[in-house]
Amino acid sequence: MSKYWSELTKGLVPYVPGEQPKVQNLIKLNTNENPYPPSPKVIEAIDGFDKQRLRLYPDPNSDVLKQALADYHEVNKNQVFVGNGSDEVLALAFMAFFKQAEPILFPDISYSFYPVYCNLFEIDYQQLPLNEAFEIDLAGYPAENGGVIFPNPNAPTGRLLSLDQLRNLLQRNTESVVIVDEAYIDFGGESAIALVDQFPNLLVTQTFSKSRSLAGSRVGFAIGHEELIEGLERVKNSFNSYPLDMLAVTAAVAALQDEEYFETTRNKIIDSRDWLTAELQQLGFEVLPSAANFVFTRHPEHDAAELFAKLRERAILVRYFSATRIDQFLRITIGTQAEIEALVFALNEIIG
Amino acid sequence: MSKYWSELTKGLVPYVPGEQPKVQNLIKLNTNENPYPPSPKVIEAIDGFDKQRLRLYPDPNSDVLKQALADYHEVNKNQVFVGNGSDEVLALAFMAFFKQAEPILFPDISYSFYPVYCNLFEIDYQQLPLNEAFEIDLAGYPAENGGVIFPNPNAPTGRLLSLDQLRNLLQRNTESVVIVDEAYIDFGGESAIALVDQFPNLLVTQTFSKSRSLAGSRVGFAIGHEELIEGLERVKNSFNSYPLDMLAVTAAVAALQDEEYFETTRNKIIDSRDWLTAELQQLGFEVLPSAANFVFTRHPEHDAAELFAKLRERAILVRYFSATRIDQFLRITIGTQAEIEALVFALNEIIG
Repeated sequence: MSKYWSELTKGLVPYVPGEQPKVQNLIKLNTNENPYPPSPKVIEAIDGFDKQRLRLYPDPNSDVLKQALADYHEVNKNQVFVGNGSDEVLALAFMAFFKQAEPILFPDISYSFYPVYCNLFEIDYQQLPLNEAFEIDLAGYPAENGGVIFPNPNAPTGRLLSLDQLRNLLQRNTESVVIVDEAYIDFGGESAIALVDQFPNLLVTQTFSKSRSLAGSRVGFAIGHEELIEGLERVKNSFNSYPLDMLAVTAAVAALQDEEYFETTRNKIIDSRDWLTAELQQLGFEVLPSAANFVFTRHPEHDAAELFAKLRERAILVRYFSATRIDQFLRITIGTQAEIEALVFALNEIIG
Repeated sequence: MSKYWSELTKGLVPYVPGEQPKVQNLIKLNTNENPYPPSPKVIEAIDGFDKQRLRLYPDPNSDVLKQALADYHEVNKNQVFVGNGSDEVLALAFMAFFKQAEPILFPDISYSFYPVYCNLFEIDYQQLPLNEAFEIDLAGYPAENGGVIFPNPNAPTGRLLSLDQLRNLLQRNTESVVIVDEAYIDFGGESAIALVDQFPNLLVTQTFSKSRSLAGSRVGFAIGHEELIEGLERVKNSFNSYPLDMLAVTAAVAALQDEEYFETTRNKIIDSRDWLTAELQQLGFEVLPSAANFVFTRHPEHDAAELFAKLRERAILVRYFSATRIDQFLRITIGTQAEIEALVFALNEIIG
């Protein structure tokens, strides 16, 4: 604590990202990274990029990437916003839309960055409990609010809402912005991008970090009504004009051009998730239905913190949250088939 | 304007970065880019990076880059902060230190992003006039303030303050943070990093965009007392945990390792600046003494907006600001010797 900090800074409790261990040979199933590398076309595009050009500023608007995303998602370019990972996109969206008189709403068990943004931008919030099945209960969201945000599928539960459930909310909730954070949508959900033309207050965010295997490049985006996008651009251009570097844009554009690789790798992850779910159930675990690249699971007879520690001893890293209601769960990222087989083998040793 | 925007967003007037034209064959002397490509060692490092690793998140703390900067500038690693360009570093610093009861102070003619940050973060500010010679007059800065920021050398004037002048300010101004924005320091100034161990309220920011030819990679940094750095980390980790992508870190670390290339290219730019200054004076221009990679110049008989337009017709882009006191100046980036010779040739045609 320093006397030079603003009062705001003194009151911050920053988000703690999942551990990025510096030791080698760890089976890393803790931060929902894709176990498969980026498409060979991405690597080709980076290698082929003329690095002499790095002396120049990138296009502040990243128009090439916006156009590629617009074509891919069948919207207009002015309905697309891009940023330095979806975390930055979300931060800017909180400023652009959620600084309101009424509190914003999000689930009690959800992406733990949301309350952190609220503290940073001095936004009131109300957390609404998941139901007993750990589902988001949108029907219980009051219409009077400063905004609504939730991940779909939700993290860390993996549970998915249908487009019908989203549509129901949007039909009632017309006076504030609704952000659907689709970081994991490509692993089993239907994107709400299909709804943006009907609902001018709907903003959908996605990322290249998970299904596109580009966590190391930091690219996220939002799609919505052009007026929402214009609001985001205003805030972005008051914060940092050039958040996306040239190589990140190059990588992201190339990733969108390899649909076959995208389909192959996400299907492998979905197949591995199904296999892991069955194996965990075999071991007596309860596994929440997941539409993401992770599963959220608990064992009726084994303490989660203890399982976490014992897996770590065996060089397998999963995610454990010591929060209320979920402190008996582990979140396990879907790795390669070999990695999750090693996990099941280790759990057999620990439990069996 | 949309009813969904926050009141804050409605009131924003975003920073307008220099034009990034999409036409080819323009002589681009408008955004202070380095005319020389990044070091061959940077290009080698990017090419040699294992792109399969892009599937993973980068180190959220960018420790490798922080250590390289600490070694280079002879400070401890916990005195170094890194961000997505110095624009992001500055934005986070405004939040961390400048949200205060008293207004912050900066020159009336200066980096035009400062008032934009103030609007975004709702910070009061007072702009203090440059003197008649377009120098920052730190002696006139009142001791009661919420913070002080200025570029050194200043932009767009290019004028430099000495370390003695900075020391004088810092001896008086002990109760708020002083940020010295050294985007252009490598082209002729002495860095205030030499003073950070004496003044716990001094933060020095620099960038890889200019002297390191890496504008396309988006890397900036700050050096100061470890408590200031800790404040910045708190805000950064409440905004975006991973702002620096893997390839940007790789490029920046490699750039620091090629001192010879750095010296050669910056000396070429300094030599070209001296040559251009003499040529402009020959043509009747007044040229402010510059310690940056640009000159700020006016002609007693030729309107700056007109000169700007006529240069653009000849495919030469310089920067023109229509602001009070400086609307008769042009800011001209130092290009390659061939580029500035073409500029002088064109000015000869226009004026001669």
